[in-house]
Amino acid sequence: VVITGDRSSALAGTADILVIATTSFLRDVAPDIKAGIEHGLNVLCTAEEMAYPWLADEALANELDALAKRHKVTVLGGGVNPGFLSDALVLTAASAAWDVSHVSLKRAVNLSQFSATVLRRVGVGFSPEEFDAGWQAGTIYGHIGFPESMQVVAHSLGARIERTTKRFTGLLAEHDYTLERAEIKKGAIAGFRQLAAAIVDGKPWFEAEFLGHIDPPSIGAVLQDEIQIDGQVPVHLLLTPGIPAQAGVAALVANSLRRVIDARPGLVTVADLPPATPPAATVSQTVPTA
Amino acid sequence: VVITGDRSSALAGTADILVIATTSFLRDVAPDIKAGIEHGLNVLCTAEEMAYPWLADEALANELDALAKRHKVTVLGGGVNPGFLSDALVLTAASAAWDVSHVSLKRAVNLSQFSATVLRRVGVGFSPEEFDAGWQAGTIYGHIGFPESMQVVAHSLGARIERTTKRFTGLLAEHDYTLERAEIKKGAIAGFRQLAAAIVDGKPWFEAEFLGHIDPPSIGAVLQDEIQIDGQVPVHLLLTPGIPAQAGVAALVANSLRRVIDARPGLVTVADLPPATPPAATVSQTVPTA
Repeated sequence: VVITGDRSSALAGTADILVIATTSFLRDVAPDIKAGIEHGLNVLCTAEEMAYPWLADEALANELDALAKRHKVTVLGGGVNPGFLSDALVLTAASAAWDVSHVSLKRAVNLSQFSATVLRRVGVGFSPEEFDAGWQAGTIYGHIGFPESMQVVAHSLGARIERTTKRFTGLLAEHDYTLERAEIKKGAIAGFRQLAAAIVDGKPWFEAEFLGHIDPPSIGAVLQDEIQIDGQVPVHLLLTPGIPAQAGVAALVANSLRRVIDARPGLVTVADLPPATPPAATVSQTVPTA
Repeated sequence: VVITGDRSSALAGTADILVIATTSFLRDVAPDIKAGIEHGLNVLCTAEEMAYPWLADEALANELDALAKRHKVTVLGGGVNPGFLSDALVLTAASAAWDVSHVSLKRAVNLSQFSATVLRRVGVGFSPEEFDAGWQAGTIYGHIGFPESMQVVAHSLGARIERTTKRFTGLLAEHDYTLERAEIKKGAIAGFRQLAAAIVDGKPWFEAEFLGHIDPPSIGAVLQDEIQIDGQVPVHLLLTPGIPAQAGVAALVANSLRRVIDARPGLVTVADLPPATPPAATVSQTVPTA
């Protein structure tokens, strides 16, 4: 979607902006981002790897950065997670803390309204054997973006990540489920628990847990997001209910148009930007179904 | 305090910054701010009215803004509340929402460690008659800064505040209390409940409640901060325990040095700035006693 800052909108007089909401991976979105930059467009991209693209491909990230600077446009990656819950909100909360020794994020999400594409990549609906084979083959990989958020937070708080770890476990359906978009048989995968950790000085410094299930109450899961920052002033944030994935990303994208247009040229992260606020524009905000 | 960006610190090579943490009122701090600007210093000031100085005195705020731009330095006002809880955190949370129809903030604070100066201005220790007289005379006035935070949030979310209201009620001690800094007799004022509201389109749009008491558990109060944003995607944040006032403002000040130095010249608010993050400097962070 190209949103034009014409005279009738609140973005009047500003540069245009290209919104890319397609896949999760830097290499898949890079050609579209380049095309946008070369047409003089600012770019806002929801691909999770774009939240900190230096991690997936440092050379490509630097290339995008240089290209954006040459064309005097800004490029930002991000949505809810990464882009808000796991980085911008963590950093904002951490502004009341100091000497941060550990960060923890826990998110529980209802998967029943997710698209078939997303359900496939987290393994929902597969047998345990198919799930294991898909994990080995890389076709089932769970949530993308924790390592990127962890880099954004660590850089801002002065921590150096040595490596990140990932554990991904399928949760079996204890009975048959019928969803709008899928049928889950008893014994098949009905959800997952994903654990990510960023290691600093040999110890977990930022740990994230993502629980996704097609019927969270059936396994006793509460739909909420929780951030715990340990340090000289501990900060504990609980979001109830948790931020809804689809509606949340729609809000983040619409609310980020203005700050991307206003930011300095080049590749930026949410650590560089003020809070996302409405453009007060005529951009129509609708909830996507995926 | 003037913090010098010398070669040994992480602020090396940057402009110097003056930190002013004295009174709450724009007119009291303005001469110091001007002196700092005229010496080429960026200024970070914890005076509550400086969080949005155009409200207390538009002409004086514009004068400071012009002066700061002329000297190419940045001026920011803010601490925990205003500056974080009631504006930066509200706006960050609201980035996942849209069409925000109402904002609510509730904060409960233990006053027992506050300085005698602060206790006097909120009326703690006075008889009910003295409390009423002090309120009438303007020597007892409670918490300062909600109208400023409300302006910052409203401007960013596109709401126009018609007026703000304030209610301030003393809470009577049900028994004698002995504090480090004061003796409170049964029947005297042991705390307060303050309600502030910003009216938009004739209705409360941003409501804030501040409960302060020298012994909150004795009146059943829970020490926490709560933000509720109503709109197309409601966002509910609970901070437990609440952000400690003194340690929190120390963190906010230290973590804001870098973003004030890096920001565009002129008067700015937290809505203009990225999250406050540590300068990774050798600045010593100690918890003030007031």
